[in-house]
Amino acid sequence: MYENIEEDGNTHLIFAQELNNTKQMSKELTKRADDYSQWYNELVVKAGLADHSAVRGCMVIKPYGYALWENMRDQLDKRFKETGHVNAYFPLFVPKSLFEAEEKNAEGFAKECAIVTHYRLKTDPQNKGKLIVDPDAKLEEELIVRPTSEAIIWNTYKGWIQSYRDLPLLINQWANVVRWEMRTRLFLRTAEFLWQEGHTAHATRNEAIIETEKMLDVYAEFVEDWMAVPVIKGIKTASERFAGAEETYCIEAMMQDGKALQAGTSHFLGQNFAKAFDVKFSDKENKLDYVWATSWGVSTRLIGALIMAHSDDQGLVMPPKIAPVQVVIIPIYKGEESKPVIDEKVATIIAELKVLGIRVKYDDSDNTRPGWKFAEYELKGVPVRIAMGLRDMENNVVELARRDTKEKKSVSLNGLSTYIKDLLQEIQQNIYNNALAFRNEKTSVVNTWEEFVKVLDEKAGFVAAHWDGTPETEEKIKQESKATIRCIPLNNVQEEGKCILTGKPSTQRVLFARAY
Amino acid sequence: MYENIEEDGNTHLIFAQELNNTKQMSKELTKRADDYSQWYNELVVKAGLADHSAVRGCMVIKPYGYALWENMRDQLDKRFKETGHVNAYFPLFVPKSLFEAEEKNAEGFAKECAIVTHYRLKTDPQNKGKLIVDPDAKLEEELIVRPTSEAIIWNTYKGWIQSYRDLPLLINQWANVVRWEMRTRLFLRTAEFLWQEGHTAHATRNEAIIETEKMLDVYAEFVEDWMAVPVIKGIKTASERFAGAEETYCIEAMMQDGKALQAGTSHFLGQNFAKAFDVKFSDKENKLDYVWATSWGVSTRLIGALIMAHSDDQGLVMPPKIAPVQVVIIPIYKGEESKPVIDEKVATIIAELKVLGIRVKYDDSDNTRPGWKFAEYELKGVPVRIAMGLRDMENNVVELARRDTKEKKSVSLNGLSTYIKDLLQEIQQNIYNNALAFRNEKTSVVNTWEEFVKVLDEKAGFVAAHWDGTPETEEKIKQESKATIRCIPLNNVQEEGKCILTGKPSTQRVLFARAY
Repeated sequence: MYENIEEDGNTHLIFAQELNNTKQMSKELTKRADDYSQWYNELVVKAGLADHSAVRGCMVIKPYGYALWENMRDQLDKRFKETGHVNAYFPLFVPKSLFEAEEKNAEGFAKECAIVTHYRLKTDPQNKGKLIVDPDAKLEEELIVRPTSEAIIWNTYKGWIQSYRDLPLLINQWANVVRWEMRTRLFLRTAEFLWQEGHTAHATRNEAIIETEKMLDVYAEFVEDWMAVPVIKGIKTASERFAGAEETYCIEAMMQDGKALQAGTSHFLGQNFAKAFDVKFSDKENKLDYVWATSWGVSTRLIGALIMAHSDDQGLVMPPKIAPVQVVIIPIYKGEESKPVIDEKVATIIAELKVLGIRVKYDDSDNTRPGWKFAEYELKGVPVRIAMGLRDMENNVVELARRDTKEKKSVSLNGLSTYIKDLLQEIQQNIYNNALAFRNEKTSVVNTWEEFVKVLDEKAGFVAAHWDGTPETEEKIKQESKATIRCIPLNNVQEEGKCILTGKPSTQRVLFARAY
Repeated sequence: MYENIEEDGNTHLIFAQELNNTKQMSKELTKRADDYSQWYNELVVKAGLADHSAVRGCMVIKPYGYALWENMRDQLDKRFKETGHVNAYFPLFVPKSLFEAEEKNAEGFAKECAIVTHYRLKTDPQNKGKLIVDPDAKLEEELIVRPTSEAIIWNTYKGWIQSYRDLPLLINQWANVVRWEMRTRLFLRTAEFLWQEGHTAHATRNEAIIETEKMLDVYAEFVEDWMAVPVIKGIKTASERFAGAEETYCIEAMMQDGKALQAGTSHFLGQNFAKAFDVKFSDKENKLDYVWATSWGVSTRLIGALIMAHSDDQGLVMPPKIAPVQVVIIPIYKGEESKPVIDEKVATIIAELKVLGIRVKYDDSDNTRPGWKFAEYELKGVPVRIAMGLRDMENNVVELARRDTKEKKSVSLNGLSTYIKDLLQEIQQNIYNNALAFRNEKTSVVNTWEEFVKVLDEKAGFVAAHWDGTPETEEKIKQESKATIRCIPLNNVQEEGKCILTGKPSTQRVLFARAY
């Protein structure tokens, strides 16, 4: 689009020099087709979402990325509260003896735990000005930095739950967690990440299952409607379940490279944690029973999903509903004397947009030129860009550019705010439709092992295939194809078939994919 | 007030049994006059604000306490954004080599650091089902769990700041931090706590000082206007400064036991961290200089201040602006058939209150009786309680009780919502006025050592006295009286005087107190 800038009578200030800068900037971003992984890594940093830090595998979430997370958090939080949940906060640390109480959960996370062993530093006697761990300050019991909070929370619930009148307990926590992953990538897999974890307690198995499914629906609605990412709801196979769960429900999304990404999980924990922490309640008949549990979470990983689902070779593409800035206005002027005239008009437009609840930014900074700003906001994925020049104003129009389609057109100043409001909805819908069409295109149905491998290698995406239902076959398929069973879709069609690997009978197709 | 309940025609369902429970409940809370410290500890737990946890010194913030924190956070966050700040998130861990870079800061926090030394657990070969720290998974460099984030943030800023155009950098972080305190108390001093920490970078010394003072004003305005706690703005003496700061500004509040509590601090850090992490910028003349810094924070400790400033022997007293629930409505009825009539009327009232932005709760749970609820919401400090009985409705009135003054009266249903809106403002003002009158009463001016000790022992509170300005005298006074210099008030009156301890000349009074 920059190539045409000079031909546009209203943007005559974009000089050759700037065009070159602009080209360089977009050229700096690796193209998806060349190296998708590299494109992602560069984009996260260049768009100002996150940075690597001095701590292995930990990220710095930069202001633009954090603003995005705040929007996600606020939307999810609203939904949690509307469904009767309240927030609380539990300790960062889990004493080892509590951590190991639910054995499967402990085993699942033991290999990736950051462990606090000491509580004091002291001056290095060999090296003044340097500090060493004080060996006299060793903890009697080591503390695990929470990789998830079931243990510390169920140990707490023990004191809160005596009777059916204390149930259900519907609590959510916004927190940081640490999982010492060996290979990390910004947002997708980091040693520390931000998330929310819901932990609920119920009197009956059925009520807990209903809760598990309800929260999966909350996640699916949010990810589809606000992040414009279509998802498939399903349940995990036993081998892909959360450690300590009886059933793990998930939403699975498709990225532009044909790999799947698990966007959220909701676990039915049965009575496992209640038994591990001895949490019983007396029912209406005064009978004692263990409490039923669920847990569910989404994390900053969702930002990775958002980026990989929609963005292009020019940068991010933000769905308007979740975009920190929905509209950016850039003044185009030659002499300083024109600026106040533009400022005045822009102030009116901003006021109108704000009345409609639209998040708008006026970038009139004078240390970068319009062309640079155009490229910058394209990189940042701002859905609508308005260029505001003097001649445009005389003609009672502005130049408006959509980030998703890159269309540019003149729009009348009359009714501009309503036009933009409608346009933002249209963009939201368009981004979703594109992602859905892409996913549909990337979903294949195969019946033989040859087809299966061929589709994975040549087309990627979701592959619906029959499987004999055994963990052994699942593991063999994974070893030989690098594809995992992403989920058994909810309300799955039941049909007779033969396992693609073993030929044994199967009653339904499951969804395979290579995945993040 | 419960004693009168039976005489009230509309609350005839409060039986003797319940009165006893009610009495027991309020009796269970230790009286402030008997043991202020015990009263506080009990109140925090009984009112459902926080709980002790299985982790030494770490608290569980319960839903009611967390809702309070959310209100505080949202209000502060709004003010930070209005003053041009953005949020970001930095790692939980600080590598030891970064931690020790700013020597004074490191020295200040070294003795209370939780230290991560390992990143993996493994099955105990001696004891199946138990886990031990895997000795093969020792970190090459230990990680400090952040007690404050200057080190990790300034190490990051190094990569973000090159030129004056990158300044100012106005960033805030909402996070958890860990300080391994030996003696802990819920909210006031916990090993882990929640807070916000602002970290800004500036081109000039003067701009950084202006920022430091601006954020102190933001804190003071919030604490006074929203938490109804009057504060004194001042600066700390050198020995009470934040480790690594050139100047620490603070707001100091007075608790009901006559002890002071530091409610927030704002630090001018000079170029200390820029030098420690080599953060330079080129100015407009292309000259290189170190960047100027500030940091400022308030924490969940504010909840402790709120409790201790206003609450009474019956429980919490919440200023309406910050109260999670501003109005509670409790139905009073005999037979089940009356309930729908009350429900319908209450629904109308709630709708009207919500239009005015008032946070209202209808407690029609049927497993506790009205008397129990009255005591419960008194304990929780809900500013306005409405009892809604059938006979009241027939008379077109409700019974309304104020938590602050404990006044009870009949109020007409006509214009009730407007009445309540005004009343909430009046309550807010009244709570503030009481706290201010108390603080004024608890502020003494003394001129001799004898007076000083006598006032501290018999009256407590703030004591304005002359001090010779030396750290040695400050330390001696602290040793002998257990009082510290809380601050040198801003815009302090300059007057000739003699140090209460040494008799040496002094130019101004400083504010002493025993403190939390």
